[in-house]
Amino acid sequence: MKIEVKKNILATNSAMAAENHQRLEDHDVRMINLMASPGAGKTSVIMQAIEHTRDRLRLAVIEGDIASEIDSLAIEAMDIPAIQINTDGGCHLTAVMIASALDHLDLDTLDLIIIENVGNLVCPAEFDLGETARLVIASVTEGHDKPHKYPMIFRQVDAIIVNKIDLLSYCDFDLNHFRRTVRDLNPDVPIMELSCRDGFGVGEWRRWLEASATAGPIDLKS
Amino acid sequence: MKIEVKKNILATNSAMAAENHQRLEDHDVRMINLMASPGAGKTSVIMQAIEHTRDRLRLAVIEGDIASEIDSLAIEAMDIPAIQINTDGGCHLTAVMIASALDHLDLDTLDLIIIENVGNLVCPAEFDLGETARLVIASVTEGHDKPHKYPMIFRQVDAIIVNKIDLLSYCDFDLNHFRRTVRDLNPDVPIMELSCRDGFGVGEWRRWLEASATAGPIDLKS
Repeated sequence: MKIEVKKNILATNSAMAAENHQRLEDHDVRMINLMASPGAGKTSVIMQAIEHTRDRLRLAVIEGDIASEIDSLAIEAMDIPAIQINTDGGCHLTAVMIASALDHLDLDTLDLIIIENVGNLVCPAEFDLGETARLVIASVTEGHDKPHKYPMIFRQVDAIIVNKIDLLSYCDFDLNHFRRTVRDLNPDVPIMELSCRDGFGVGEWRRWLEASATAGPIDLKS
Repeated sequence: MKIEVKKNILATNSAMAAENHQRLEDHDVRMINLMASPGAGKTSVIMQAIEHTRDRLRLAVIEGDIASEIDSLAIEAMDIPAIQINTDGGCHLTAVMIASALDHLDLDTLDLIIIENVGNLVCPAEFDLGETARLVIASVTEGHDKPHKYPMIFRQVDAIIVNKIDLLSYCDFDLNHFRRTVRDLNPDVPIMELSCRDGFGVGEWRRWLEASATAGPIDLKS
């Protein structure tokens, strides 16, 4: 007998993700699953999102980390509801964890929830959380070869942020090479260049967020 | 009945890791398990190791990636034996994968094998490969909070490289904060600052490698 552990885990997760998705739709809330390597700048990108859309969108943040509360405390300091999930060694968030976080948010008072997944370019890509959009951040300091090496995550996202663009001239990051590789995997995905330090690209990031948050009825993804 | 899947997987892995370890000891070869986030500079650090120790040490490299052969081709171009392992979605290397890679190396002609694990600060820390030393790279562009967020890996390594130190003045990386956090987790671990770009710290990296490769008989870790 072969025990299909992984298949069963993913099937159970998908069922719970569909429940999360329906719950968001019932309350007319959108939810972004933000994924990236450790240190790519996820929290800074979320803080930019808060700063530049808080007058138009009602936001909440779900912070996924193996350990520590550093990130949720930073978000709470901006007067935004923040739920910290500590996975205690787990390498990704699951739909069950998100269901539990949603229990702690008043969905009727929100337009958009941003989930900061655990810093990892591999495992989070396999676990649907019930989100309405997926985003990956690649920072220029990581090198332009990431889409070659982690194709799954780049193939499935709805948008890509190239972060720390202010460091471009100090790195060997070839933006054209990166864009070409992404195009082969995910032809129409928007690629936004951003610097959380000097504000370059913040307008494009804000517009993408507003469009995501005000999109029509949520379609359940296949 | 509770099926202890994870426990069994780890026990099977540990048994194979012990076999790898014994095999290395029989041939008087050392093996370093190099772990880091995607884009922290693992391949560049290995290339520096090759360049600066190749006249004294006989090296081979095992490259772990989800997809692509970019890294092993770069190592082979330096005339060093390189075995590429593609995990096809797997988020870490396992002792079985390493056993299979060792089959393809002539251990009697080697002093030191460097394994580049899959870019991931979480899952690789749980899987012993039979290595004689563990190393993690943190790059200054990732921020100084990584030991807070990924304590397991920082707790268990035998050395830490702080890479891309040439970018320190362009980042908000607090080296003292990083060192203090590491000390709390792993009091005596050496922390080496390195720039693969301008060569800062290469001497210390070379000396650490030579000491690792010429250390006495290998002690099996508990």
